[in-house]
Amino acid sequence: MKIPSGVLALDHCRALDRDDPLRSRRDAFSLPEGIVYLDGNSLGALPKVTEQRVRDVIAGQWGKDLIKSWNVHDWIFAPARIGAKIARLIGAKPNEVVVTDSTSLNVFKALHAALRLRPERRVILSDEGNFPTDVYMAQGLAGLLGQDYTVKTVAPAEVARSLDDTVAVLMLTEVDYRSGRRYDMAALTKAAHANGTLALWDLAHSAGAFPVHLNRCGADFAVGCGYKYLNGGPGAPAFIFVAEHLQADARQPLYGWMGHNAPFAFDLGYEPRPGIEKFLVGTPPMLSLVALEAGLDQFAEVDMEQLRSKSMALCDLFIALVEQQLPAAGLTLASPRNAEERGSQVSFRHPEGYPIMQALIARGVIGDFRAPDILRFGFTPLYVSYADIWEAVVRFVAVMAGKEWEKPEYRRRAAVT
Amino acid sequence: MKIPSGVLALDHCRALDRDDPLRSRRDAFSLPEGIVYLDGNSLGALPKVTEQRVRDVIAGQWGKDLIKSWNVHDWIFAPARIGAKIARLIGAKPNEVVVTDSTSLNVFKALHAALRLRPERRVILSDEGNFPTDVYMAQGLAGLLGQDYTVKTVAPAEVARSLDDTVAVLMLTEVDYRSGRRYDMAALTKAAHANGTLALWDLAHSAGAFPVHLNRCGADFAVGCGYKYLNGGPGAPAFIFVAEHLQADARQPLYGWMGHNAPFAFDLGYEPRPGIEKFLVGTPPMLSLVALEAGLDQFAEVDMEQLRSKSMALCDLFIALVEQQLPAAGLTLASPRNAEERGSQVSFRHPEGYPIMQALIARGVIGDFRAPDILRFGFTPLYVSYADIWEAVVRFVAVMAGKEWEKPEYRRRAAVT
Repeated sequence: MKIPSGVLALDHCRALDRDDPLRSRRDAFSLPEGIVYLDGNSLGALPKVTEQRVRDVIAGQWGKDLIKSWNVHDWIFAPARIGAKIARLIGAKPNEVVVTDSTSLNVFKALHAALRLRPERRVILSDEGNFPTDVYMAQGLAGLLGQDYTVKTVAPAEVARSLDDTVAVLMLTEVDYRSGRRYDMAALTKAAHANGTLALWDLAHSAGAFPVHLNRCGADFAVGCGYKYLNGGPGAPAFIFVAEHLQADARQPLYGWMGHNAPFAFDLGYEPRPGIEKFLVGTPPMLSLVALEAGLDQFAEVDMEQLRSKSMALCDLFIALVEQQLPAAGLTLASPRNAEERGSQVSFRHPEGYPIMQALIARGVIGDFRAPDILRFGFTPLYVSYADIWEAVVRFVAVMAGKEWEKPEYRRRAAVT
Repeated sequence: MKIPSGVLALDHCRALDRDDPLRSRRDAFSLPEGIVYLDGNSLGALPKVTEQRVRDVIAGQWGKDLIKSWNVHDWIFAPARIGAKIARLIGAKPNEVVVTDSTSLNVFKALHAALRLRPERRVILSDEGNFPTDVYMAQGLAGLLGQDYTVKTVAPAEVARSLDDTVAVLMLTEVDYRSGRRYDMAALTKAAHANGTLALWDLAHSAGAFPVHLNRCGADFAVGCGYKYLNGGPGAPAFIFVAEHLQADARQPLYGWMGHNAPFAFDLGYEPRPGIEKFLVGTPPMLSLVALEAGLDQFAEVDMEQLRSKSMALCDLFIALVEQQLPAAGLTLASPRNAEERGSQVSFRHPEGYPIMQALIARGVIGDFRAPDILRFGFTPLYVSYADIWEAVVRFVAVMAGKEWEKPEYRRRAAVT
């Protein structure tokens, strides 16, 4: 989108909505009246169909067919079936993705598999802006393995030049959760491979936010989150991708019965399934799984390139409007200005970021805050409109002009920020 | 219950139902018409309240309050809140149990914690009848740790005498999933401790089936399943118990952000929470969690000793009726005859066990089959009546007398048995 050089107005936003090929998708979501929801990067909104889908599984399947449902309703195949729906969004083959466990646990499995494929190397390389749980899982794994395994974190700009012959695996989150900065997956994967290093990508802020091309980029492993842009509901199960050519040799150490080649033979010796399903562990939480599937079905027939175009346009518009309307509010853009270098979020820094965000939330503009000073706004193209952006900025102006954030109650920290 | 010495009849069963102090509990479950459900040890039945509870979380919380629900609806405290409800059923303190992940993963965490508390020992001892996923997880952990860690499995009768100074942790499932044989938790835990060994109990077939007394028995660690006797729904999250006096020193290696002492400070260094919540890993699947809580609420004000009495009586009656009505059917009791030595299930062996169970299921008596020849019947005292037992045996007689199990379609194996 080209931002017009003159003063932007609501009419401009409405015109963009009229021309939006994805505009009808918003009707598939249940959004509260009066709220501008810019936190789909933390918890995606509720698809209207989810309630019925979950009810069908509870009352129509569990309640009616009880234990038989594992067969007659194909519950047992749900992790692979839903994984295949994610595969389409991230440039993977259907047999390269399963839904299972949490992102954290999938990081653990993928890292272990990568380390075992590079047994002569001892370093997991990541960046110091990575989402902490990824780094924690790496630290836990390194501690478990002993033998001088270490986790090294460097500044994002130092990642490529930190690849040396000690680095077994490069673990990066494609889109930085604070700034929204997007790595060049193709270039970094290529650099890793040139160094004999495997590449693990965390797609928490990528999957469903824009088209990802794992195979085109040559990614080895990937993990991601079901409850952000995939709209799978609170704590939705996560996914793991392993490139097909690595699956035969990849091993993960969480030997659960669902990853066994014959789970109902009840043999005492572990024998992994041959493909991606060896990355399953325990019995999958079906209610949360089916809610995730309902979220994924919102992407049916969505052109992911159109989604990306709209995402970039929404973000560009937000930046332009904030800078136009709040030129002297002390806000500093914390995201790349170039849309190509961003995910689907925009962040601004402000020393009073926390209370400002609480004041915005009180006015019905839901974003979130990330320490130390980041106001974070996520833009989900399926349900955020251009007029929403206008409305968000109008309220932002009110918060700043009225110094509403100075109220003491906006400084109180909640358990979850 | 004393089984009368004369011929048992339906009237007898009806009289038992009339006197059953738990009889009204059945009304709280949604059970299909005409079905005798004896597989609550595999997947518990649906509580009537579950559908509404999950709907409230979907439409009333996620849909209305979106990301704010983590705070305003206390989602973030759900793993501990629901854990405390389980604690009451298993003889633990509220701060000793959290709901998280799958049983398999919790086995991994508990075993690791135990091994680190006994660093000079290298053996995980279990029995060869244990549920395979527990043994697999132990094998995976041992492989990960290297350094001569091994998993040793012995016959159940050999467990006590196999405790020697190499055994760091004794891992047993209290109730054998095939035979229903119940270990003496107090005696074996005492024997383990006398040997300097820690005790990990899998309560998959115990929690909600009868009163468990973890602290009275001195158990160190326990894990268990939410979807069997706790009626939490398919793949419901599991739980983990760590005795309070071990929590300060216990460490688990799956360093997820939910186990971090300050998850929203987003520090890059892992610092575990001080108590049981250090055993949390990733973001919890809220929809499945709230369904589990609805299942647990079925135990409100239930006297667990009454539950145990009824469970023993149901099992005794089933054995008596099967042996009375099918004396020459080739069925051999595979469970202990003494109710004190059983969980809440009864198993019979038969060389044609698989097709017989399929024929029973076709007649609406839902049990399950476990290789090589076990017909398994679980008795959930909250919703199984004495008249159900009568009806189950009547149909069992029809299956055997009519040789219904000889139909070829009953030999076809499904994905899940």
